[in-house]
Amino acid sequence: MKSILEPWCNACAASSALRFVDINLRGTAQVMFQNNPLTGVLFLLAIAWGSFSGGAAEVFSGGLLGLVTATLTAMWLRVDAQALGDGLFGYNGILVGLALPTFLPPSPLLWAYVAIGAAVSVVAMLGTANVTKAWSVSALTFPFVITTWLLLLAAAAFAGIGGDAAAAADAIVPIDPAAADPLQPAAFLHGLLQSISQVFLKGDALSALLLLAGLAVSSLAAALLALAGAFLALCTAHALGAESQLVSAGLLGFSPVLTAIALGSVFYSPSVRVLAYAALGTVFTVIVQGALNVAVAPWGISALTAPFVLVSWLFLLPRQHFGRAASE
Amino acid sequence: MKSILEPWCNACAASSALRFVDINLRGTAQVMFQNNPLTGVLFLLAIAWGSFSGGAAEVFSGGLLGLVTATLTAMWLRVDAQALGDGLFGYNGILVGLALPTFLPPSPLLWAYVAIGAAVSVVAMLGTANVTKAWSVSALTFPFVITTWLLLLAAAAFAGIGGDAAAAADAIVPIDPAAADPLQPAAFLHGLLQSISQVFLKGDALSALLLLAGLAVSSLAAALLALAGAFLALCTAHALGAESQLVSAGLLGFSPVLTAIALGSVFYSPSVRVLAYAALGTVFTVIVQGALNVAVAPWGISALTAPFVLVSWLFLLPRQHFGRAASE
Amino acid sequence: MKSILEPWCNACAASSALRFVDINLRGTAQVMFQNNPLTGVLFLLAIAWGSFSGGAAEVFSGGLLGLVTATLTAMWLRVDAQALGDGLFGYNGILVGLALPTFLPPSPLLWAYVAIGAAVSVVAMLGTANVTKAWSVSALTFPFVITTWLLLLAAAAFAGIGGDAAAAADAIVPIDPAAADPLQPAAFLHGLLQSISQVFLKGDALSALLLLAGLAVSSLAAALLALAGAFLALCTAHALGAESQLVSAGLLGFSPVLTAIALGSVFYSPSVRVLAYAALGTVFTVIVQGALNVAVAPWGISALTAPFVLVSWLFLLPRQHFGRAASE
Repeated sequence: MKSILEPWCNACAASSALRFVDINLRGTAQVMFQNNPLTGVLFLLAIAWGSFSGGAAEVFSGGLLGLVTATLTAMWLRVDAQALGDGLFGYNGILVGLALPTFLPPSPLLWAYVAIGAAVSVVAMLGTANVTKAWSVSALTFPFVITTWLLLLAAAAFAGIGGDAAAAADAIVPIDPAAADPLQPAAFLHGLLQSISQVFLKGDALSALLLLAGLAVSSLAAALLALAGAFLALCTAHALGAESQLVSAGLLGFSPVLTAIALGSVFYSPSVRVLAYAALGTVFTVIVQGALNVAVAPWGISALTAPFVLVSWLFLLPRQHFGRAASE
Repeated sequence: MKSILEPWCNACAASSALRFVDINLRGTAQVMFQNNPLTGVLFLLAIAWGSFSGGAAEVFSGGLLGLVTATLTAMWLRVDAQALGDGLFGYNGILVGLALPTFLPPSPLLWAYVAIGAAVSVVAMLGTANVTKAWSVSALTFPFVITTWLLLLAAAAFAGIGGDAAAAADAIVPIDPAAADPLQPAAFLHGLLQSISQVFLKGDALSALLLLAGLAVSSLAAALLALAGAFLALCTAHALGAESQLVSAGLLGFSPVLTAIALGSVFYSPSVRVLAYAALGTVFTVIVQGALNVAVAPWGISALTAPFVLVSWLFLLPRQHFGRAASE
Repeated sequence: MKSILEPWCNACAASSALRFVDINLRGTAQVMFQNNPLTGVLFLLAIAWGSFSGGAAEVFSGGLLGLVTATLTAMWLRVDAQALGDGLFGYNGILVGLALPTFLPPSPLLWAYVAIGAAVSVVAMLGTANVTKAWSVSALTFPFVITTWLLLLAAAAFAGIGGDAAAAADAIVPIDPAAADPLQPAAFLHGLLQSISQVFLKGDALSALLLLAGLAVSSLAAALLALAGAFLALCTAHALGAESQLVSAGLLGFSPVLTAIALGSVFYSPSVRVLAYAALGTVFTVIVQGALNVAVAPWGISALTAPFVLVSWLFLLPRQHFGRAASE
């Protein structure tokens, strides 16, 4: 892999324009914890395919706008150069930019909304990292979640953003208990792939394969853990009696996929004990996804990747403890 | 007391099986901050009586399963030996195990749910303690509250756990304002005892007496503060015009009882100033119990001991400050 | 200014009664971050005018009771003498005392409720400051917000406090999306002034002018930033399509006014970069005000100054980072 990237890195060192492109590609790759521009290219292809094939070009445009705005904001705030170069200030921005056009109706103001959200996500990243570093824990996608939740809630208060949209109008409805509804075996593979592509808010099998390819060129362990996490999430959701439609659309699986990669390969060194610990975290993320779906139902907004953030923080906070155990 | 326990402690030192029993008994006693196996025996008798006399054997079984699962998880995670021996990894597990069968319909999956919840409560305990120790504050029952809230919320999302249960079906209803409804004097003693037994989610006078006995063998101050806290909570709730039914069932008193013991005898050294401070905290816990009952009403779940955790953290965080004052 | 205050400071040094008055005046001024007894006098006049002219004398009385109770509680808790003298333990108490009679029906118990809330606000101040000082961030009005939210929520649970009040009875209603409703130019100045007076929960132009005068005698920069913050908030709210009625009543502007003063003059040294940063924070506070209005709608309570606290914490946490940049 190194050999493929070397000419690119040399070219970036010589050109500030290419360097800017590199930062944005790494920012895209960091959504799944990878610091690799080739991963970023494959991830962007996955997003583009998922957006255009679904007739939602504005989602891809929103993602690009969010990504570039976040990177420019980080430069303006003169953040740490190493962290900027690793793409750590872009991943929340691209997610804000993908999420807003997914959940809000298109309008001219929406683009200003995306730009403000992406800029604030950088401030939130700096602030969150400043707090969590006291416990050697990463900010994860918390800046994306908190910024996007606020922007989605506010949409119901502002007519220019979507205040009269159907989404808000029927907010606060009784919780509809899940029906016992067994998953068809044929839907299992579908759900497996959708769980991976839903990390980028897309339900598309080809996008999922591009994302897996992007993970694999950077870290084979991450690609395998994504698949294993999706598999375990589907089995758990099915066993607990979740609605088939949610399961096969990947909507109970994208947070567990992120938890599996984070706990299994990014923040802990893999071992049998760590994998068992990551498996417990992955199973619990499915339950928390169900819980937060119910919790945010009154406001008609999405839980986003909050289940991943909450469970990963919970399972990373005893870190030094588990780290010590793992090294024995 | 020492003399009674000495043969037991010697026996535990010689047998790892007895040692395991000792850890679980101390874990039970730690629900009310006591590190004493005899207290654990009396507490388990109180739970058993409350469960079997109420025809809810599954609650007692759930408590035992939660307790043992939590202790085994803590051992697997190789937690600090001293903290493990003091029972600090069992009290959240037994509460998870008591709460789930109390609020969810019995089913085979419920036992898996209890085991997952108890295991996660240990992870949550390690993570919470890691955060709160920066301010010399204890984790209290926060791991129990956060784990159980997530599991109860998720129940509405999973048909196998209780998704079609009545409890979830009528969630999100308008808040029903309390009616002015004076407490009958005869109900006062009843409410006093129920406030103590509801710490273990039981409404039973004999259970309350067993719990008081368990406290007294370990700390007479704790037993007196439990009674004084319950008395103050009942007077406060009555004065504010709470519904008699809630008051006499002890449902506005169990969190204040825990606050009174924690602030008055566990974390501060008793003095007139500390008792006045603990009294303010106890009165405010009644108000927070009312507030959180209203806050969680849309989801049809219980506030659990969250009022105790919130108020005790609030009143313990200025600790060094108050400690200094108290030593003057 | 110094020369005007010198005789007063000398008199305070000689009389503990005057000293007590001085502490309470500074506590009033600290609501807008000023440590100046003359500012406190002008702020109290603004509150008195706003209360009596609106026929709500109990709001002024509540504010005084909250202020004095908080100061006495802080003395009893033997807080740091310097912080006490600067009024840092009074500003949350006066806000609790103004808010409760604004949102709850008058009753004898209401005064006990105000006194308990003001006393708890001091404990919350000590606890919050103890936590946030780890990141060199101030407690802001978080103690006021958390205490008052709990007291307002609890009102629906207690008949003696307002359990049967209309406010609670129609809680949990569907969110009503904002209608597109253009602001009349004539209403702009009105909204500008109300945004300032609503910091003290008053909608009154003369009160706003008194508050501006109070700011100006202590810090001209603060007075200008209050005006600029209100102006920017109105433009933002209008551009996003907020309801005219909310905008012109200042209900989307008081939190942004506080954010503008805090970020622009109190916690950062003014510069072009800091002003641009403060402007982004002020714009985002308008969005967060919209978001939290929607978020708390199910419980029929007010968002209070939570949008200011949330955004200011977010924008102050990367502090050392931005501070370094500003010094370049």
